[in-house]
Amino acid sequence: MNKNEAIKLVEPHLTKERFEHSLRVADTAVKLANKYNVSIEKTELAAVFHDYCKYRSLNEMQRIIETSSSLPKDLLLYHHELWHGPVAALKIEEEFGITDEEIKAAIYYHTTGKANMSKLELIVFVADYIEPGRSFPGLDKVREMAEHDLIKTAWMVSRNTITYLMEKKNRIYPDTFHAYNDLTRLLDGGNKFEQ
Amino acid sequence: MNKNEAIKLVEPHLTKERFEHSLRVADTAVKLANKYNVSIEKTELAAVFHDYCKYRSLNEMQRIIETSSSLPKDLLLYHHELWHGPVAALKIEEEFGITDEEIKAAIYYHTTGKANMSKLELIVFVADYIEPGRSFPGLDKVREMAEHDLIKTAWMVSRNTITYLMEKKNRIYPDTFHAYNDLTRLLDGGNKFEQ
Repeated sequence: MNKNEAIKLVEPHLTKERFEHSLRVADTAVKLANKYNVSIEKTELAAVFHDYCKYRSLNEMQRIIETSSSLPKDLLLYHHELWHGPVAALKIEEEFGITDEEIKAAIYYHTTGKANMSKLELIVFVADYIEPGRSFPGLDKVREMAEHDLIKTAWMVSRNTITYLMEKKNRIYPDTFHAYNDLTRLLDGGNKFEQ
Repeated sequence: MNKNEAIKLVEPHLTKERFEHSLRVADTAVKLANKYNVSIEKTELAAVFHDYCKYRSLNEMQRIIETSSSLPKDLLLYHHELWHGPVAALKIEEEFGITDEEIKAAIYYHTTGKANMSKLELIVFVADYIEPGRSFPGLDKVREMAEHDLIKTAWMVSRNTITYLMEKKNRIYPDTFHAYNDLTRLLDGGNKFEQ
């Protein structure tokens, strides 16, 4: 499947705003993939499909998580905003035969991150956060870092995400916390790093 | 053992400054224990002994963690500031015969917190943070909350601790994160709470 085919499959399932966000994430992700030497084809598919299940009903996503043998049930104990990534990773295989584990993982973990992210996972995680339609305090710093260091950028995204969740008094899914700790470990190596 | 006996045992092991901090934590903790109906005797011992091992050498603490059958080895992968609580919980039993599990747990977890904290654990965790010698931005709000709601106060302490660790680019020990999530769950119950 190429990017245009993917776009045609995704468009009917998203609002116009969300569809355009997905295209911007794809453009941003491809720039990062060029810079950090990641497969453009995989990046395009992962980015275009990352929000594929964003508008599935909560009931449907809950049922999919409950009945799937591969999705962890503890997702249901956390905010439903965390459900659409894992559900999409499952659905793109089921509906379109996309079996590439790297693409599926990048979609699965685009909201939370996790420990030991691949470069493709990092790119979709970061692109979703910095695409040009986003606007919130501190984002310029993250975009600037994306020009130089993918790990440091992902670290900033995970830290900002935890801060945001705590401001909203939300619980933090363990993978989000594991992403922060793992990226800190990668950057630290016993010493503090500069942002 | 009573409070004065505990103080005599602790004093030789601490700097003057740290010893006075321990006495202030004990005073603060006793006030909280009165307010929230917790045993004064247990609170006094837990608070007086909470920093008992603060000045053990890193080598000694490392050796104790490595050779103990009860302390988790992953402590050694995190900042050494996390070691003195668990080591003290072990040492007060070994050296002074204090076997009370509630007292030991309050000392063990005073730095990180954990999920499912007892009231005594919450009190020492909070008192260590708000004792009158402490001074940092936002502390007045936490002290004010301690007059009204022990869980909300501990939630603020855990949130502020995570924020502080992220500002310092430190990794976050899993128990710290579990404390935040568990306290959020207790306060939320599906709804957002007011600070």
